[in-house]
Amino acid sequence: MNAPDAVIALDAADRLAHKRSEFSLPDNTIYLDGNSLGPLPKCVKPAIDELVTDQWGADLIHSWNRHQWIDLPSLVGEKIAPLIGAAPNQVIACDSISVNLFKLLAAALKLNTSRSIVLSQTDNFPTDLYIAQGLSDLLGEQHCQLKQVAGSDLIANLDESVAVLLLTEVNFRTGELHDMRVITELAHSKGVLVIWDLAHSAGALPIELDQCQVDFAVGCGYKYFNGGPGAPAFVYVSQRHQPSLQQPLSGWMGHKAPFNFEPNYRQGKGITRLLSGTPNILSMVALDAALTVFDQLNMHHVRLKDLNLLSPSDPQRRGSHLAYSHDDGFAITQALIEHGVVVDFRAPNIIRFGLTPLTLSYQDIWQATQILTLIMREKLYCQPKYQRRQKVT
Amino acid sequence: MNAPDAVIALDAADRLAHKRSEFSLPDNTIYLDGNSLGPLPKCVKPAIDELVTDQWGADLIHSWNRHQWIDLPSLVGEKIAPLIGAAPNQVIACDSISVNLFKLLAAALKLNTSRSIVLSQTDNFPTDLYIAQGLSDLLGEQHCQLKQVAGSDLIANLDESVAVLLLTEVNFRTGELHDMRVITELAHSKGVLVIWDLAHSAGALPIELDQCQVDFAVGCGYKYFNGGPGAPAFVYVSQRHQPSLQQPLSGWMGHKAPFNFEPNYRQGKGITRLLSGTPNILSMVALDAALTVFDQLNMHHVRLKDLNLLSPSDPQRRGSHLAYSHDDGFAITQALIEHGVVVDFRAPNIIRFGLTPLTLSYQDIWQATQILTLIMREKLYCQPKYQRRQKVT
Repeated sequence: MNAPDAVIALDAADRLAHKRSEFSLPDNTIYLDGNSLGPLPKCVKPAIDELVTDQWGADLIHSWNRHQWIDLPSLVGEKIAPLIGAAPNQVIACDSISVNLFKLLAAALKLNTSRSIVLSQTDNFPTDLYIAQGLSDLLGEQHCQLKQVAGSDLIANLDESVAVLLLTEVNFRTGELHDMRVITELAHSKGVLVIWDLAHSAGALPIELDQCQVDFAVGCGYKYFNGGPGAPAFVYVSQRHQPSLQQPLSGWMGHKAPFNFEPNYRQGKGITRLLSGTPNILSMVALDAALTVFDQLNMHHVRLKDLNLLSPSDPQRRGSHLAYSHDDGFAITQALIEHGVVVDFRAPNIIRFGLTPLTLSYQDIWQATQILTLIMREKLYCQPKYQRRQKVT
Repeated sequence: MNAPDAVIALDAADRLAHKRSEFSLPDNTIYLDGNSLGPLPKCVKPAIDELVTDQWGADLIHSWNRHQWIDLPSLVGEKIAPLIGAAPNQVIACDSISVNLFKLLAAALKLNTSRSIVLSQTDNFPTDLYIAQGLSDLLGEQHCQLKQVAGSDLIANLDESVAVLLLTEVNFRTGELHDMRVITELAHSKGVLVIWDLAHSAGALPIELDQCQVDFAVGCGYKYFNGGPGAPAFVYVSQRHQPSLQQPLSGWMGHKAPFNFEPNYRQGKGITRLLSGTPNILSMVALDAALTVFDQLNMHHVRLKDLNLLSPSDPQRRGSHLAYSHDDGFAITQALIEHGVVVDFRAPNIIRFGLTPLTLSYQDIWQATQILTLIMREKLYCQPKYQRRQKVT
């Protein structure tokens, strides 16, 4: 099935088209799930080979200095910084989003002690809500109380009782995009600190953390940054909060002088105090290599490719995946996958189409829509084999 | 320099001698630092190759089910369990020791709310102390107060005011080994819960967590388990504490039904509630492969090889590394490394000789002692080139 000339012309004019060859992608598959797990950049394999064989295998313990393992959280953080609009010394790679949110939430509440409410939206990604609940259980509601409201009620609830606003920029189900600049400004006008979760936006959209005066942010290494399954997350703390910031997971790597092995904790300088335990070097090296795909890349070009294609009703309000609900969403997802179009499903009835501009051509998208059309028109998804549930989709 | 016949005979009779060939070790190096970073097991490379190329690269998101990524924390935990004397369903691999200690310490204090003191020893590994300090700063001293005492004063301070005793079984500097059974029993007789840090003992010594009625434990994947730099840690929670245990880093992977994406946290069954964020699959696969080296291995045999060799003054009170202090300890460490004997240095003046029975022959040890003798007798360590400090040794 050949795409129409108009689609072929779009690919010919695509200034990001060369990026596709930097990825290993299976044949006969259109992968629309980069929003769950980014595909494998070709540069990762040699980087991991070198790490395992030459560094760990041959240089052993000396690699911590010789191959800069000890600096990887900072080096990776500085690679991410320009991709999210952050000046240097504000981003570091470590742990998971969940663990990093705990650090930031506890630290933010310490900076705003006269208030206790953490405001978020009910359909935020659950781990954000769960972490706030865990902190609340630990500290008691007088110190930390999670208030979940519908997205449409956020503004009305953003008042002087709120200590911290905790939001994900792009909704994991619907793909809806919050206006970071407007919301952050409004929050600040009420004395509210803001933590942005960039899980579904970092690497997909231009983000201007510094310009938007954002206080704190976390984000994901394994979605649009293609760092591999369970890649380290990252954390951003605005320069202006760093001197007074104190986070509770005060492990040895966040100490001012970890190799002094002192019995008392002294916070590391600036963003390094966000570190906790020993960094996961294998995963860190994969993410470090994967980020080279973004060298010299303009995130506005990435975004434009995404938007030009989609002709959405309101592109300014959406991230980089499209979500459709359908009563047979699960079966449609399974039928698409069997026909070589990898999408994912989110309960109860949502199909997500992840449109990662670096790895997809316009012809891929055209092909995917042809297949979707066939599946829907012929009701192929009604076949019994597509009805069974998997544990993870 | 050939070893004497007696040493050659020891190697010939060594029932663990075949294990050495399961590791990639650089030529002309005697690696006595497995207590900092275990060497590379040969099985890791093909496991990582398969993970990157065939699983992530080709099967992409489907690998979470198809290759059991989602189950890796439990599968790896169950591989570790018999090596530390734990029945199934009590061990899980995740995060770092630092992060896991935070979970356990907060959870243990919730089980013993009428008390607030966390007792530990001043020369415990610093991250253990730092994490207790971080929790204390978060909760206030009325809920969590760290009391650091000298190792010799531990017993005298183990009284009814103590909520949790937090100890590392083998001291990271001196190699001194605590009597887990006696101390745990004494703690329980005073109503104290015990968290054991097994960083320097798991994989090196027989450990009987269940038999010793231990409450909680954490341990390290990258030392004696050879899981690679910054490998995931593990956590043990005795079956009897699991139903009532509540840990504060309640991320989505610890939820009872993570893929339901519910807005409210419900704790996962048993030990799975210790999970927090998405597991680091690259690091987890390396550790999973590395642990196959321990298949069918009797930890008592591992320990016997270690002890027979050392003829120590009191082997029952020591772990698997030997520590010597010397005013010129740093320079001696550097001279040993340049002569192909990799040891490490801990400030202010301690040289550590890690004796990992799986990778070292008796001839290696004999050779290392010859080199050490030469360096000391000829005062080779006095050369200026050995005086410069590195950031990490």
